[in-house]
Amino acid sequence: MICKIHDKIKETAGQLFSRYGIRSVSMDDIARELSISKKTIYQNFKDKDQIVMMGVEQHIEKEKKEFGEVMRDAENAIDEILRFSKCLRKNIAEVNPTVLFDLRKFHPQAWEKWLSFKNDFIKRTVLCTIERGKKEGLFREEIKADILATYRIETIEMTFDPKIFSTEKYEFIELQMELLEHFVRGMLTRKGYDVYEELNNTINNE
Amino acid sequence: MICKIHDKIKETAGQLFSRYGIRSVSMDDIARELSISKKTIYQNFKDKDQIVMMGVEQHIEKEKKEFGEVMRDAENAIDEILRFSKCLRKNIAEVNPTVLFDLRKFHPQAWEKWLSFKNDFIKRTVLCTIERGKKEGLFREEIKADILATYRIETIEMTFDPKIFSTEKYEFIELQMELLEHFVRGMLTRKGYDVYEELNNTINNE
Repeated sequence: MICKIHDKIKETAGQLFSRYGIRSVSMDDIARELSISKKTIYQNFKDKDQIVMMGVEQHIEKEKKEFGEVMRDAENAIDEILRFSKCLRKNIAEVNPTVLFDLRKFHPQAWEKWLSFKNDFIKRTVLCTIERGKKEGLFREEIKADILATYRIETIEMTFDPKIFSTEKYEFIELQMELLEHFVRGMLTRKGYDVYEELNNTINNE
Repeated sequence: MICKIHDKIKETAGQLFSRYGIRSVSMDDIARELSISKKTIYQNFKDKDQIVMMGVEQHIEKEKKEFGEVMRDAENAIDEILRFSKCLRKNIAEVNPTVLFDLRKFHPQAWEKWLSFKNDFIKRTVLCTIERGKKEGLFREEIKADILATYRIETIEMTFDPKIFSTEKYEFIELQMELLEHFVRGMLTRKGYDVYEELNNTINNE
């Protein structure tokens, strides 16, 4: 029973955070949403920081699973990136961008956890995709995969900085899609160009 | 005569800074190089900071002139970027990368000057080039020029951060060239792809 309510709190908190950001959601809000007392929450979690940390861990597991499925199912490296792009679009639509700002500012440990996931796991994934694309003749042979993988990670970072891309001026999702498309296109061989255009058209007409 | 020695000091200091970085070059070094007394330097410049600021101003003027010539002479937007790339390669080979690190750390006013040049002037130039390329049918019509110009400026910034690209691991020039080539390629139409390959081959065989 404790286990059930524990998971329920984590789940509901995650939903509220995704919708409104972390800072704006208090322990009272979570209790109210679940129609339980704040005491019950504190019987299950030390503090909000712990709920946030567990939420981040859960999110990381979910992303790892999704990434694994994409890599397994994709026909080729370009298809892989287009499928990642679809996941990314879904994640962005579901999560209020404030979440990451709040994480960095108010939950440094959970932020570090996310950062190291992003830097290690996503970088490894990007490296694999680039190598796959090279083998398939879709990405240019001479590409320095390591430089481009680091570049890609830092680009994602960049889009979260409102001093660089003002949140008033740019739609977050538009920004991500523009930069991801540019990233893939920058790697293409002529054959890759054709495959990209074809797959991209198929997806856009779906 | 004062004017001549003033320019001579500025010129020599600029050469020493380019070669060894700013921090490593003292007023004594500049005096020694010119076989003049330190007093003569201080009769012409308030302090090292002022020499650095004037050096930055001179460098900016030189770059503006070079950029103007490139835009005037280039056959099309891709040629423009390849010519910029050549200038960049030349500048990198001539200037010790420490200069920019020292500038940021020890000469904040001169750094601000360079930063605002980079952010305003280079951004405007990139915007012009993108618009030109679109009109010529070489860059994709749907590109958000403003996003990509900001992205490009921030990419340049990124390459100066040793926490991102370790100076031990990456050759600075290799890094710049890889990312510039990727940047152009990410914008190409099919027609642009052909023009790029042709122009790039011509340059590489020169």
